[in-house]
Amino acid sequence: MFGVTILGNNSALPAYNRHPAAQVITLNDHLLLLDCGEGTQMQMNLYRIRRSRINHIFISHLHGDHYFGLPGLITSYGLLHRSQPLHIYAPASLKNIIEIQLKVSDTKMPYPLHFHTLEGESLLVDEDNFSVESFKVYHRIDCWGFIFREKRKPRKINIEAVNRNKVPVEFYEKLQQGENYISNGITIPNEVLTFPNKPPKSYAYSADTMFKEELAEKVKNVDMLFHEATYLEDKMDKAVSRYHSTAGQAAMLAKLAEVKKLIIGHFSSNYEKLDDFLLEAKAVFPNVELALEGETFIIT
Amino acid sequence: MFGVTILGNNSALPAYNRHPAAQVITLNDHLLLLDCGEGTQMQMNLYRIRRSRINHIFISHLHGDHYFGLPGLITSYGLLHRSQPLHIYAPASLKNIIEIQLKVSDTKMPYPLHFHTLEGESLLVDEDNFSVESFKVYHRIDCWGFIFREKRKPRKINIEAVNRNKVPVEFYEKLQQGENYISNGITIPNEVLTFPNKPPKSYAYSADTMFKEELAEKVKNVDMLFHEATYLEDKMDKAVSRYHSTAGQAAMLAKLAEVKKLIIGHFSSNYEKLDDFLLEAKAVFPNVELALEGETFIIT
Repeated sequence: MFGVTILGNNSALPAYNRHPAAQVITLNDHLLLLDCGEGTQMQMNLYRIRRSRINHIFISHLHGDHYFGLPGLITSYGLLHRSQPLHIYAPASLKNIIEIQLKVSDTKMPYPLHFHTLEGESLLVDEDNFSVESFKVYHRIDCWGFIFREKRKPRKINIEAVNRNKVPVEFYEKLQQGENYISNGITIPNEVLTFPNKPPKSYAYSADTMFKEELAEKVKNVDMLFHEATYLEDKMDKAVSRYHSTAGQAAMLAKLAEVKKLIIGHFSSNYEKLDDFLLEAKAVFPNVELALEGETFIIT
Repeated sequence: MFGVTILGNNSALPAYNRHPAAQVITLNDHLLLLDCGEGTQMQMNLYRIRRSRINHIFISHLHGDHYFGLPGLITSYGLLHRSQPLHIYAPASLKNIIEIQLKVSDTKMPYPLHFHTLEGESLLVDEDNFSVESFKVYHRIDCWGFIFREKRKPRKINIEAVNRNKVPVEFYEKLQQGENYISNGITIPNEVLTFPNKPPKSYAYSADTMFKEELAEKVKNVDMLFHEATYLEDKMDKAVSRYHSTAGQAAMLAKLAEVKKLIIGHFSSNYEKLDDFLLEAKAVFPNVELALEGETFIIT
């Protein structure tokens, strides 16, 4: 299962029971946390996220609505007697902020806390089944997006075909990796002996950013893109001056990047109702949904 | 009106939809915030607290469950274009923590932010109608309680009596302050010419603390006392080792201090139901209530 659960969909000023930025990525057995606005741990309780399974946290930038919930989460892990390491990927200053807060409370975490500084677009995580890369976005302060990619899955054995061709069981793993089978000098093509597995999926989160065509290249062809839509087109001037985007711009970026599906969020507290965000985006890019809190988007 | 509204009543690990420490004191036209755990600004939205009227924030100590909501609140005030000064009373290190967070987000507050360091038991606020004092409590790290006191109100003019005794209007203000009136060498006692106003009320918040008899002297005779009750007597060992109190100890302190009413809170996430806290405390001190979130306790 590869999915994204929205815990917070609002921009900086909480309103209308919408919370600041936080998402949980489910990648098979792994949970990954993407930004951690104030109240994220309470939202995890509400939506029954098994937070003990989170080992990687990605913080896009150091505006408070993207990390003010992190000190509380880190502390709660300590109170819950966590022992496995926690990896945090964030701009450099976050380490200092967290360390000061732990120091003044005279708190020692019972688990290893590893800070990884975001600098230069790079591969951050390389696990057996997935990887995470960072890419630079266009905001007022140093700000990063992330792409989560499944790795190519092994091909599936065609049992009827391997039996018919008397392929020994020891060779199955090589078949799964795509090798051909050679029997008495005769090559049996891999495609005869295996079925392809599902193609690997990808999810890009472009954090807080103004509209920039260059961004389309960075998230080209992902299966699902989260793009911020802080404003509607009626507040384009605010979007520009604050390095944010409108719903229409988010949709245009999705179109340029030829992604399969777009999720929009990070809504301004200027707007109580969200319907117009969907309408504005749909006019440009039809396969779009609102990042509503508590919803899980499965990447298929 | 002199009252206390509970925004958070839980100890460090949020659970059962209970939130970390935060209370709002209403003192006529003033609102004062007492501790500011994570999510306090959302709780203010929920319980319709007019946060723009808060000019004083008191942070008892630097365990995260008492201040992790403060950076978000300070930032939100900026987004809401606050202009009036905000005064924060807290242990010294808080200033540094907040200033670093504002710096990394490249945020300038549009209002003056004044930090006042808690050190030595002292008078913190001295307004026309009320005062706030700090007192030291007994916790793992530097921790402070606060007493909020109404000032004595002017006596009320007895209109029938002043008319009968022909007291000139210019003398009314002195009468309200308690002076006698002397007419043709004859003293008319103030009590004849005025009625007493209601006696000034007081509220003490003793923050996170272990049970200590000395504390009773510091909060002696207040009209309402908030005392933490993190545990029940069944977890006395935890209460002692973590410098917290049980419900029974909170009640004993209230009894020793001869307060009129006790409110208990800061409940551990070990307990889902709170009924036993009330039972345990009532057996020692009958006039006790649970600090339930959203409730306002009027001090009468």
